[in-house]
Formats: sequence, structure tokens, C-alpha cells
Amino acid sequence: MIGIDWGTSNLRAWRFDAAGAITEAREAPYGILRLPEGGFDAAFAEVVGEWIADGEKAALIAGMAGSRQGWLEVPYLDCPAGVEEIAGATRLLPIAPATVRIVPGLRCRDAQGVPDMMRGEETALIALLARLGGREATICLPGTHSKWARVGGGRVLDFTTAMTGEVFAALLQHTILRHSCAPPVPGDSLPPGFMAGVAQAKQSGGMLHQLFGLRARGLMGEMAPADGAGFLSGLLIGHDVSAALEQGVTPPIILDGADELLRLYAAALDAWGIPYEAAAGEPAADGLVLIGRRLGMLG
Amino acid sequence: MIGIDWGTSNLRAWRFDAAGAITEAREAPYGILRLPEGGFDAAFAEVVGEWIADGEKAALIAGMAGSRQGWLEVPYLDCPAGVEEIAGATRLLPIAPATVRIVPGLRCRDAQGVPDMMRGEETALIALLARLGGREATICLPGTHSKWARVGGGRVLDFTTAMTGEVFAALLQHTILRHSCAPPVPGDSLPPGFMAGVAQAKQSGGMLHQLFGLRARGLMGEMAPADGAGFLSGLLIGHDVSAALEQGVTPPIILDGADELLRLYAAALDAWGIPYEAAAGEPAADGLVLIGRRLGMLG
Repeated sequence: MIGIDWGTSNLRAWRFDAAGAITEAREAPYGILRLPEGGFDAAFAEVVGEWIADGEKAALIAGMAGSRQGWLEVPYLDCPAGVEEIAGATRLLPIAPATVRIVPGLRCRDAQGVPDMMRGEETALIALLARLGGREATICLPGTHSKWARVGGGRVLDFTTAMTGEVFAALLQHTILRHSCAPPVPGDSLPPGFMAGVAQAKQSGGMLHQLFGLRARGLMGEMAPADGAGFLSGLLIGHDVSAALEQGVTPPIILDGADELLRLYAAALDAWGIPYEAAAGEPAADGLVLIGRRLGMLG
Repeated sequence: MIGIDWGTSNLRAWRFDAAGAITEAREAPYGILRLPEGGFDAAFAEVVGEWIADGEKAALIAGMAGSRQGWLEVPYLDCPAGVEEIAGATRLLPIAPATVRIVPGLRCRDAQGVPDMMRGEETALIALLARLGGREATICLPGTHSKWARVGGGRVLDFTTAMTGEVFAALLQHTILRHSCAPPVPGDSLPPGFMAGVAQAKQSGGMLHQLFGLRARGLMGEMAPADGAGFLSGLLIGHDVSAALEQGVTPPIILDGADELLRLYAAALDAWGIPYEAAAGEPAADGLVLIGRRLGMLG
């Protein structure tokens, strides 16, 4: 089986053997907003056509490919939902010579009735659920839009999304804070200033005021520009974590995502003294295997 | 005397008679980041040169003209500060044939030692202080960077700045929220969606999550794009007001600023059931008169 996580700005594809092990992996910059000429069909053919020519007959796709602007709209599935409900709500895209199915996103409402949704993250949740074997947990998926999901009994119970990564980018690039922040330097350790930002988020005063505090420290020479972006990141991730903890989390907390982001959320959780576990392997791919197996798409 | 409020993007100038009444007012788009050829001298000459040729001998300037990127840097003055301290800390700019003095900005630190500062707003505070006659109050000046100042005994005791207006603009223009928000329509009433945004800010969950809630409502067809910008504005102003109230305000609350923004802050304070008064007249100009009088610059 072929599995694809088709996002807004890029796509990741895996080829699985009958046992569900990854035998090959590919990435392409063909997010649904950056498709090549020929659209979805062309991108699909370019990235996985070779695997299909080589005998693969089934592909399972998750993510924005199932959105209204995607390849085939698959309605959101309401929580609580597990692998069975998700498999049952996939939709068939009739393209020869492969059987292509698209996975639905998930939807829920908070206590006040405000909706929330995800598309793509549900596959990682499915894999992590399976590893939990029915136990309760809180799964945190950091990202442009970070997700905090409460799971239990083999299903996603509900979740909340925070615009943490996207707000970071907008504030860093499009406000006066850019004068207080040197460009972030990628690296293997926490960015300088990060823990000071987390510590600030733990104080009262409100995020809108604390953001100006970054500018004020810069103007007063009390924070070097090299520390600015790390401070901003720590302040926002600190508020993200703080709000999640205030809403109540069910231990254990399981973190899954890119290493660089995981490190930041782990450090913020440390600042609150909250234990967590980092997920191993590639849950997004494993989840596609679990859904595909339920649909008889493997081997 | 001539008084000037010289900001980042524009400047306002007033001509006062010996009694401190405004006899003429002018505006120009020559903020310190948008100066004409010839810089500060040329902008000054173009806007108020005629008044000087007509016999005015003194000009008092507040705002960003006193910043490091300004005409003459005037160091921040530490709070508490009143009209006497501010007048004493003005600096003389030697340009013939007028006597030009520039007003310092104010600076303070919160309980955790984080600095805060203002440049320009101190003139309105001075005027409102004088009207209070020594009584305590909280003065709220909404804007790109809103200010909440605690005053008493004729002095500004301390203040906090929130990046409310600037964060609104950055999120509206540079995040996915732009898809949920039609362009704001200026008008004499509250923008649609505003009170729903304020109500959301009163709930728990955190601002970063509530921002995504706007997107999610839009995707679910539960909020019209026409309501989006108002909702975003209400959410952010609601958080600004909420944080200020949490920090503790000393009644009465006095609001001063542009009518359109005042209406929004007034409505948000109403949602908390907190009484307020809107300042009358032109406090920014009145404050320049009070400082100028202390310096013997009038009449």
C-alpha cells in the first residue's frame, strides 16, 4: 500500500510492505496550495506513479487533500472517533489503475459549542492510540497549528487547536518585534532567550502586554536581538502549554512532531514540572497502515 | 506657543494663544519614519514655518521626535512623574529663530522588573492628571500600542503597554484568519462580531486557541466573513481589558483616544460591567500647554 500525508505546503509519501513496514519514503513540495501543472493528478503521478507501475494497487491519503480545496472533499468526522470510524468514513477517489481512498478529518466542539477541526493529524493519533491499548492520555502535536488531543478507549475524545506557530511567524515578520529579534538560527539546542520567554508566560499580565515587554527590553538594551526570537517562541509556546494545562490534561502527555519543535514543547512542559513522553518512530505513517489494514488495502 | 505631537507615521501641530487656547491646528503625514526630503528641519518648516514667520517664538514637541531615531534624543524619564518633572527633563533644540524644546517619554518597571515605556502619550496624561486635581484614577489610551496608566497625586505612577492594535493588524493581514475576515467597514457603530469576540475573550481556553476558533467557525459556516474582523478585534481588545482588570485598576477609568477605538474599549468595559468616563476635548494638546506654561513658553 501507498500512504500519503498531503498537507498545505508539502506532501510525504510512504510505500509499505504487506506487514506495514516502510520500504520507501518520498517528499515533494506539492502541498495543495503549491500544486504543479496538472494539479493533484500530476503531483500524485510524479511522486508515486513509479510505485504504482511497480505493482502497488492501493493508496490511502490523509490531510488537506480531503478538504474543500483538496482533491476530493471528505466531510469531517465527529469525535469521539477511532480507527474503525475513520476507516468507515474514507471516500473512494476513482482513478485508474489504483484504488485511492481519502481519510476524513476530525471535528469536535468545546463546552461552549465552539467548533475545532484537524486534517492529517488524525493518522498520528490513531497510531499513538493503538500503542496506548485503550489507556487514557493527552497527545500534543506541536506545529503551525498545535493540537492537544484527549484520547481514551481507543478513540480521540476531543481536542483543541492553538495557532502558536503561525502567530509566531506573523509577529516575528510583521510587527515592530522584528526590530528586537535577529533571524532565528537553527540548531540542536534550545534557542537563546527561549526559557526566559516561557518564564514570562508563567507570570500574569497578559500576552499582549508581555509581547510589548520584548520590545521594551530590546529598546532598553536588556535583551540582545540574538535572544529575541527565542524569547518570542518561548512566550507563545509557554502560553500554549499554560492554556492546555488550565483546561486540564489527562496524563501521560505524549509529544509527537518534528525534533526541533518537540524540544521546545518538552522544555516548556519541564518548566511546569509536567512529565511527558516523546513518541518514537513515524506515527503519521503507522496510522495510515492501521486504517489501510482495516480497509483491506494491505498485502 | 506651537505644540507638536510628532509620531511614527504622522504629526499634529497646534498654535496656542497666550491663554493656552487652540487658535489653529494642522496635520501632516511626516511621521519620523516618513519624513520629506530635508528631514526634520524641512518637515518642521513646512508645517509650522508660517506660524513662526507670523511671530511665534517657541515650540514644544512630544512623541517619537525625542526618540533615538528622532530629531534630538531625550532620555526617558522614570515614573512616578508629573508636569514638573517632565518640564524639567525637556531638552532644547537650538534652531533659529525659534526656541524648540522636546518632551521626554516616560519609563517604568513592573513588579518583575520588566521595563515599559511611552513617547507622546505623556502629554494627554498630564492634561488628564490636571483635571483630576490629585485624585487617583486609571487612564486607558487605546491605540496601536494601548496604554493603561495608574495616576495619583498629580503624577503618572506606572503604566502597561499592550500591542493590541498592532497584533490585530498582523493577524488580520498575515495569517490564515484573513480567509475568515472580510475587510473591516468603518462606521459609527460597533463592528459586527465584536461583542461575540469580547464574550469569547471572557472564556477560558487561551488566546492562541480562541484565534483558531475564529477560523474554525468560518470553515463550519458558523461565522460570516463580515463578522470576522469585528470578532478578532473584540477578542484582542477583550484580552487587553481582561489583563488590565486582572492586574487591578484604580477607579475611575478614563478613556482617551480616537472615537472609533474609544467605542470599542467602552463596549468591552461594559461587558465586564466596569464604569468609565470618556475624556473631553484634546488632552494631548492641553498637556503641551501645561508643560509649556511651566517652562514659561506661553504668552
